[in-house]
Amino acid sequence: MRIAASRLLRSSNQLLGTLRMASAKVLVRDNINPQVITMQYAVRGPIVIRAVELEKELEKGAKKPFTSVIKANIGDAHAMGQTPITFNRQLIACLANPSLMETANFPSDVVKHAKELICCCGGKSCGAYSQSTGIDIIRKHVADFIAKRDGFPCDYENVILSGGASESIRNVLKMFIRRDAPKKTGIMIPIPQYPLYSASVEEFGLGQVGYFLCEERNWSLEEDELERAYQESLKKYDTRVLCVINPGNPTGQVLSHENIETIIKFAHRHNLFLMADEVYQDNIYAPGSKFHSFKKVINEMGAPYNQMELASFHSVSKGYMGECGMRGGYVEFFNLDPEVYVLFKKMISAKLCSTILGQVMMDALVNPPKPGDPSYDQWLKEKNAVLASLKERATLVKEAYGSIEGIKCNEVQGAMYAFPQLMLPPRAVEKARSLNMEPDFFYAMQLLESTGVCIVPGSGFGQKEGTYHFRTTILPQTEMMKDMLERFKSFHTKFMEEYK
Amino acid sequence: MRIAASRLLRSSNQLLGTLRMASAKVLVRDNINPQVITMQYAVRGPIVIRAVELEKELEKGAKKPFTSVIKANIGDAHAMGQTPITFNRQLIACLANPSLMETANFPSDVVKHAKELICCCGGKSCGAYSQSTGIDIIRKHVADFIAKRDGFPCDYENVILSGGASESIRNVLKMFIRRDAPKKTGIMIPIPQYPLYSASVEEFGLGQVGYFLCEERNWSLEEDELERAYQESLKKYDTRVLCVINPGNPTGQVLSHENIETIIKFAHRHNLFLMADEVYQDNIYAPGSKFHSFKKVINEMGAPYNQMELASFHSVSKGYMGECGMRGGYVEFFNLDPEVYVLFKKMISAKLCSTILGQVMMDALVNPPKPGDPSYDQWLKEKNAVLASLKERATLVKEAYGSIEGIKCNEVQGAMYAFPQLMLPPRAVEKARSLNMEPDFFYAMQLLESTGVCIVPGSGFGQKEGTYHFRTTILPQTEMMKDMLERFKSFHTKFMEEYK
Repeated sequence: MRIAASRLLRSSNQLLGTLRMASAKVLVRDNINPQVITMQYAVRGPIVIRAVELEKELEKGAKKPFTSVIKANIGDAHAMGQTPITFNRQLIACLANPSLMETANFPSDVVKHAKELICCCGGKSCGAYSQSTGIDIIRKHVADFIAKRDGFPCDYENVILSGGASESIRNVLKMFIRRDAPKKTGIMIPIPQYPLYSASVEEFGLGQVGYFLCEERNWSLEEDELERAYQESLKKYDTRVLCVINPGNPTGQVLSHENIETIIKFAHRHNLFLMADEVYQDNIYAPGSKFHSFKKVINEMGAPYNQMELASFHSVSKGYMGECGMRGGYVEFFNLDPEVYVLFKKMISAKLCSTILGQVMMDALVNPPKPGDPSYDQWLKEKNAVLASLKERATLVKEAYGSIEGIKCNEVQGAMYAFPQLMLPPRAVEKARSLNMEPDFFYAMQLLESTGVCIVPGSGFGQKEGTYHFRTTILPQTEMMKDMLERFKSFHTKFMEEYK
Repeated sequence: MRIAASRLLRSSNQLLGTLRMASAKVLVRDNINPQVITMQYAVRGPIVIRAVELEKELEKGAKKPFTSVIKANIGDAHAMGQTPITFNRQLIACLANPSLMETANFPSDVVKHAKELICCCGGKSCGAYSQSTGIDIIRKHVADFIAKRDGFPCDYENVILSGGASESIRNVLKMFIRRDAPKKTGIMIPIPQYPLYSASVEEFGLGQVGYFLCEERNWSLEEDELERAYQESLKKYDTRVLCVINPGNPTGQVLSHENIETIIKFAHRHNLFLMADEVYQDNIYAPGSKFHSFKKVINEMGAPYNQMELASFHSVSKGYMGECGMRGGYVEFFNLDPEVYVLFKKMISAKLCSTILGQVMMDALVNPPKPGDPSYDQWLKEKNAVLASLKERATLVKEAYGSIEGIKCNEVQGAMYAFPQLMLPPRAVEKARSLNMEPDFFYAMQLLESTGVCIVPGSGFGQKEGTYHFRTTILPQTEMMKDMLERFKSFHTKFMEEYK
């Protein structure tokens, strides 16, 4: 009897093996991680994939109604023609090839700066790993920068360097995953939001709790709406985190001091962990707008608010440097439970460390040339030129879109994007639905195919039901920007005519 | 009645708020992601944390029985004094600071190479993002390298660049997460293994299926053991992935062609997805040992094996370059389901892209100077010098540890590590257990505190019960290596004496 059973088992195993062989693939859509299917990251989604294809088709000589693709989908300043800051690149070159410190005739402060950093690299080489937390001296410079910015102390031990801010944001979110808890941890994120948040929340099996920004009041963040979103979320989630993006992405608003206080009080009332995405802190354009860090406001408010847990993020990819390809960022923790911090550091250690040259670029951001240094004048001139040009384009974009019929565009107070509303005619909406597309996706795809202009539909960031938007960067240089706006206007007029 | 209930609710909410305030922290050990608690990454674990502390204490003038800490815990060649390859660093400097192409007097092939690459960067700047898959021309060079290495075609569209091989390995593992499936996906990994695998499997909520390498036969990978591990795993897991590390980390074995065939047949029989960690493919020392890629062997075996799904990994951090801090790596997929591949690419897009200079370093690995190029002779000389020196140290380490009483050490056929077995006296084992430590952890901590030599206990990699090991790199330069071996011998003798 036993033998028979074992034989049966064996032959059924063989049968199973044969079936499996016939079924071809081990890993297919039906058995892949389901969150990989459901997560979305529109900034590099289907419209952008199509834009890249179109570029390749143009290169091969294909005939299109346009001769170039303009990528206004992503905050990628250098790709749009912004030139790097000379000081930064001299510093990186010295770290990569230390013999240049002697031979390249770089300014003496560059060489001094490079020597200081390279002495802190393992074996004096940027090819050695750093500690997972980053190179200590750079963490100290970050801490000095934060302390000076805010007027409150910052302990470098609470700063961790990472490959861009995205990596830090994802690492912090990971701490809130609880696979076996009865309720997922709810993460409050703005709607519209930068889809890193929605994508990571989905990928990690966390609960997305969207709070709507108020478009009518220039995308302000209102207490009632925070309260509504929080209370509703509790039916489904254990909501413990509030993410704020300031200046806003994709919405470009800059939060007032008062508004930040309100948010902090709300978070305190509900015992929420604060995540402050402040990567656009240097990108402030509107008269009267000023950047206030959450760290500063929390400290100004005193007890009990200055006891709250806060993680804030910064990056070398935005601001006036736009060094996206270098992958440099940091998180500063404030009031994190010490035991949690030890666990966090253990968790990131399996990823070894972030790129050393990205860490060095972060040093250039937080520890730039000082008045009197040989590099200072040129550095300041280049920095101011970039920021002035961005400010000019922020105004240009708002005015251009604001003047088009069927489009409403808020002021771009900060960051690198406009998020105009499209008043799509009902027939366009119907047409899109009949094609099983979001209406603003349909619009954006038509725009791309007819003009080569690549923007991201609002549905990729979230928006109030029945409203339609798109995100465009303000990054094309002025000439290209004018070209883009011309193409856009001409398409928009035809589109509205066709579906009116 | 309604009003009363709502008041009650409100006051209970206020009470809850007060309690929460008193309870201090939102995020504590009790409610953190439990996998963050359970995951371990010994290569940067408590022994290494203590080593860093000791270094800082020495700097501050503390008196210790040693004057320097020797970190043999991690495969970090530059930190241990290996010098970078000149060609690589000239190339990186040109990308970072293109004006150097005109001014730095670099060899003409460096400049030509740099120009070719920078033209493929967005806005001709390494500060622009690349596609998430990496820069196409570098992917093409990787594909050419693989095709030439294996003698079989490689499509660049199947190559994805990443920030080190670790990132690619983690990305591939993520596809197998299934939060709501009745059984976790089982991932077969060698024991001993590189703890990136155990840490990631734990963090992702996958199932670790360990198969033991056979220490008696120089850490070979045996079919019976694979079969045992697989069959036992099925009680608990849906086992679908087989990870192989070749050359082995921490075990240093190089798999024979025949052994690889056996493994492939085993994986085919059970319909397993193959992951081949081949980051040490250039590190082969033993006479008669040769590296065979899984991709090559699968293709040589023909149908049905050449239909199997395979992901293989490579890195700039090891080999003769040792550029760990640059963070460059790749995964090549073979026979991946096309729909799965689209999903994979979508998943990684939320992380934007890996560092451009890390991608450039990968280009230097796969597309080095050719005979006749101005840089070739120096490049070849430097490369050969590194590999010859590593080979010398591989022998030195094996012979040194092999000659110590109470230690058994296999031949270091490849990679960068020895994994000697410690025959610990029962009293040492008892002493460790009484301190609630793994015996080899106890040994390693004592070694560190008395001599400054930092190694990683075998328990961090996994080992057969009742056996004890440690991993040491072969990376200290010859003089430091001799110093380290002296310190080790003297400690070991005393330790064995004390606990005999």
